Amino acid sequence: MHINDLETPVVLIDQDILDRNLRGMADYCASHRIALRPHTKTHKIPEIGRLQVQYGSAGITVAKVSEAEVMADAGISDIVVVYPVWGESKWRRLAELAKRIRIAVAMDSLLVAEGISRAAKTAGVEVGVRLEFDTGLRRCGLPVEAASIEIARRIMALPNLRWEGVSVYPGHIMGNRTTRGVDIPLENSRYDRLFEMLDAAGIPYPIVSGGNTPAAYQSHLFHGINEIRPGTYVFNDRNTVDAESASYADCAATVLTTVVSTSVSNRAIIDAGSKTLAADRLGSGDKMHFGYVVDHPDFALEALTEEHGHLAVPEDSHVRVGDRLRIIPNHICPCINLHDSVYVVCGDRVVKRWKVAGRGMVI
Amino acid sequence: MHINDLETPVVLIDQDILDRNLRGMADYCASHRIALRPHTKTHKIPEIGRLQVQYGSAGITVAKVSEAEVMADAGISDIVVVYPVWGESKWRRLAELAKRIRIAVAMDSLLVAEGISRAAKTAGVEVGVRLEFDTGLRRCGLPVEAASIEIARRIMALPNLRWEGVSVYPGHIMGNRTTRGVDIPLENSRYDRLFEMLDAAGIPYPIVSGGNTPAAYQSHLFHGINEIRPGTYVFNDRNTVDAESASYADCAATVLTTVVSTSVSNRAIIDAGSKTLAADRLGSGDKMHFGYVVDHPDFALEALTEEHGHLAVPEDSHVRVGDRLRIIPNHICPCINLHDSVYVVCGDRVVKRWKVAGRGMVI
Repeated sequence: MHINDLETPVVLIDQDILDRNLRGMADYCASHRIALRPHTKTHKIPEIGRLQVQYGSAGITVAKVSEAEVMADAGISDIVVVYPVWGESKWRRLAELAKRIRIAVAMDSLLVAEGISRAAKTAGVEVGVRLEFDTGLRRCGLPVEAASIEIARRIMALPNLRWEGVSVYPGHIMGNRTTRGVDIPLENSRYDRLFEMLDAAGIPYPIVSGGNTPAAYQSHLFHGINEIRPGTYVFNDRNTVDAESASYADCAATVLTTVVSTSVSNRAIIDAGSKTLAADRLGSGDKMHFGYVVDHPDFALEALTEEHGHLAVPEDSHVRVGDRLRIIPNHICPCINLHDSVYVVCGDRVVKRWKVAGRGMVI
Repeated sequence: MHINDLETPVVLIDQDILDRNLRGMADYCASHRIALRPHTKTHKIPEIGRLQVQYGSAGITVAKVSEAEVMADAGISDIVVVYPVWGESKWRRLAELAKRIRIAVAMDSLLVAEGISRAAKTAGVEVGVRLEFDTGLRRCGLPVEAASIEIARRIMALPNLRWEGVSVYPGHIMGNRTTRGVDIPLENSRYDRLFEMLDAAGIPYPIVSGGNTPAAYQSHLFHGINEIRPGTYVFNDRNTVDAESASYADCAATVLTTVVSTSVSNRAIIDAGSKTLAADRLGSGDKMHFGYVVDHPDFALEALTEEHGHLAVPEDSHVRVGDRLRIIPNHICPCINLHDSVYVVCGDRVVKRWKVAGRGMVI
């Protein structure tokens, strides 16, 4: 089937670019002896999760228990939930997962650890724990201070938990560009202090897990990091290009769209709006546009309403109703999460369809 | 079941507020003899579509053919697709729908009308057409000028189409607030010119369809409008409150969330991010926040990452991990589209679950 036989809007995954991205990250990690545990929230597609494991990943990362269930059902046997899982029902589900796969959770409070410990004890299983420290993003993570080391000690003493080490998320470090004036040497001073405090308290940290996509290929520069959890690298997007950690030629996922209206002067409307592309602004830099139009850098995706993408086009663009355009979204992760399935393409040929089995798994 | 027995994050629909919103708009339209054809893109829930018809709607509106199919399957028999439907396959699907329900399309090009006409002729059915004019939003819609009247004349002459009139979308007029300095009198001058040109050309316009939620209750002030297509009014959201066309007490849909981390000073992290609430900024006014925290106007939802909502909280907030908070999203339409189902509540009691059957229907 030719891609022009597909109805639009539809997500296309370029098989060759995906493969290159998967291999590139696996090779980098292997050469630096860093474990790769990709965050599958980007794709939510079991087939890609299995490819990541085939290419040497230590296992995978997810954000939610329901995502872990989908990936476990697909045969992935080593999963870390990098999220402070809360609530009796979710703790029970975690313990159920621990009966069939190796599972761990990154959290930042004793309360969460106690809940998981109780559920694991009841089920007669062991759940891995990693303690999250905040190293600058100010999202989750304990501060690097004495009280936090005491929490680590108390978590280590809880029954049915397997202490695995520490987790950080340098989500504020953007590849070759840095935001908020934060750079790797500054980050390292925080890591060094954390390791000093853990050493002084006699707390081991066999795993130091970090890593986002924009800074992934600089992971060996972060002191002590021996595992990374990049997500977006499988597809890349306008954000990773903006952070100078990929080029548009590295973007494996595009949204194929059709021009449906050219009635308004200097405008073309495509059949992909915020319910197809997601409304995320760019993480840094240009805040005004909502995607990149492949082969048409002179078209600006200025606005998204729910089902309309508003392109500003030059006077002489000759764009017509029925024309097809491919869009690289600002942020591919929430975009994929809007679609029930994606089509894998090789050039202009559609080679298969993958279900986004983890779509909408918010629990 | 009590709402606290639900796992979070989850969308709650307050039955009483929904009912009041449905009745309020139906009563307004009845008293002004304006036909109500609600846009079901907001809820995508057949049960609500049927309620809207029960409460006197002339039929419903959708944006995509696949949404029309879902609503037709649910027993709704009069649907307008307010979208320039493009492509052989979609035109065939429209014609199939015309075999079992009354269906019409609003479009703004001869090309789209010709495609629908051909498909309708092949199937031996009739499809209604409404010609869209741009009255200031600069999205879809022909300009109010002579060439557009000629397009209307040519569409009227096409076989198997049922000429119904004109469609406009005052999406730039925001209730009691106006954006871009546009107000109703200015809009009316454009409508008057359009009607003059249609009259001069002898083109009838039995239906003049307009209307968005923020300006819905001013619809009788728009010259000639005899049908409106509000969507958001069923639930309302932070946008409609910001436009002063609703209050927070009129917001029927909230997202129930749980605080999962309070490790970072003056922050609380909730388990609802952009994959739960949608990342839309406010249409006007405050561009910085991503939702309203019910009962906690001093909490600011400053940022969303995919699965984390970042709340700035006062020093003395006493917010704890495990606390539950209800959020009114900026824009409820893309939020609902992220969820497979919603729970209908009466006070704190869960009374039923509705499937979002039209979720993800982008084709």
